[in-house]
Amino acid sequence: MAEANRISLNTATVSRQWSLAQCVEGCLRHGFGGISPWRDKLHEAGVAEGARLIRNSGLGVSGLCRGGWYTAEGALTPAVLDDNRRAVDEAAAIGAACLVMVVGGLPKGSRDIDGAREIVTEGLAHTLEYAREAGVPIALEPLHPMYAGDRACVNTTGQALDICDQLGEGIGLALDVYHVWWDPEVKRQIARAGRERLLAFHICDWLVPTRDLVLDRGMMGDGVIDIDGLRAAVEAEGFDGLLEVEIFSDANWWNRDPDEVLSTIAQRVAALA
Amino acid sequence: MAEANRISLNTATVSRQWSLAQCVEGCLRHGFGGISPWRDKLHEAGVAEGARLIRNSGLGVSGLCRGGWYTAEGALTPAVLDDNRRAVDEAAAIGAACLVMVVGGLPKGSRDIDGAREIVTEGLAHTLEYAREAGVPIALEPLHPMYAGDRACVNTTGQALDICDQLGEGIGLALDVYHVWWDPEVKRQIARAGRERLLAFHICDWLVPTRDLVLDRGMMGDGVIDIDGLRAAVEAEGFDGLLEVEIFSDANWWNRDPDEVLSTIAQRVAALA
Repeated sequence: MAEANRISLNTATVSRQWSLAQCVEGCLRHGFGGISPWRDKLHEAGVAEGARLIRNSGLGVSGLCRGGWYTAEGALTPAVLDDNRRAVDEAAAIGAACLVMVVGGLPKGSRDIDGAREIVTEGLAHTLEYAREAGVPIALEPLHPMYAGDRACVNTTGQALDICDQLGEGIGLALDVYHVWWDPEVKRQIARAGRERLLAFHICDWLVPTRDLVLDRGMMGDGVIDIDGLRAAVEAEGFDGLLEVEIFSDANWWNRDPDEVLSTIAQRVAALA
Repeated sequence: MAEANRISLNTATVSRQWSLAQCVEGCLRHGFGGISPWRDKLHEAGVAEGARLIRNSGLGVSGLCRGGWYTAEGALTPAVLDDNRRAVDEAAAIGAACLVMVVGGLPKGSRDIDGAREIVTEGLAHTLEYAREAGVPIALEPLHPMYAGDRACVNTTGQALDICDQLGEGIGLALDVYHVWWDPEVKRQIARAGRERLLAFHICDWLVPTRDLVLDRGMMGDGVIDIDGLRAAVEAEGFDGLLEVEIFSDANWWNRDPDEVLSTIAQRVAALA
């Protein structure tokens, strides 16, 4: 089992219901150990005010979601690279343990996934250089293969680690069980990653059936992911970060009282091995 | 480009509109070179009558869909193994180039994907023994990772080849671009497979956005898959089988005049490299 103070609330989990300030208050009220804001929530609050709120709360900050999206304009434009530098600055401002990267899918009209992957690697190299100076670890998140077209063309833990190895220090993985649970290679790749490359661990569940490709994630325990097994694998490598809960749920959790959502999270995390 | 006689119609593509007999007639009318029936269509026609229809047509038979589903009852029951033997017999009866295997996902209530994979490998070994006697090649189909929970726990080309290597002769791959296009390893694994293991090649397209996990496949050219690149990779290994078109499309192609569907397929295949 894990206590509530091991939990970090990713603000996407209650994005429809709560502002950043409400998320911070909710985390404190439920005894959560940390928070991980999305940038839109942070921008709504204002970065300086949001950073003040978070720092004063004493909560851990397991990440900032998200930089990346390198393929959005079909090439690495100044706008894309600037936005990623701002994301690094914001991660530093809130004291985030890492900046989570959702790298972008195929450029509009393209079928060249190898080309998209090259754009992404080059983009990450630029951002990484800036992030090292700022002392912000970059957490590359492999996304489920069903997002290869439109969200992220980095789709397996092994592929993400190949990129990390190519780029060197200061970059590692944000592993979300939702994206990686199906992968026959995942435990071997977690061992390959080791402590150095394991920067964030996100939990939720895969529902059967899944009714929407993006907005139908399940609460831990309601689906088929062996969360205990994956958690044991990352902790065996020495990962001791927070368990970040990130649930997009258009038809269920986004329609509930957020205090009920946080209570349920605490119960379900307590029920883990 | 490819001529219509290189196309095989998977009956799922017009499953809502046409019987097996209508599919056979449609293939002949449009100059297609082959057909690949689903078992439900074959059973509707009656296996003997369906086999007679297909054999008399002179069409190639690129496969029979599908055997597998080994995890349906949580263990390899006689019912599951019997059904697979019947599938082999039916594939032999219609002269199919292979029996396509959709292996099954997690057993109901299970989170043990490694265990599911063991059941599948053992089940395939049983069916393979029978299929070798019958002279029917077994075509293991890796399914997209989004189906790991409920349809197939074999999810990458590399994983499928590991199983083939473990089981020996008489088993290979049915590669559907829809399932494998995202995989950074796919071309390397196609080369690893070689001529011997490449038994079937299925085409359709991945739509952006995809609105349903199962029934929203696209017509070739309407999505983001580099079909030409994948086809070149299998043909570079010597694959010279038919291009089997398998499109599940609840909101589009299943609602159209099937002759329009087949004409469109012929046009789109002609537009391939």
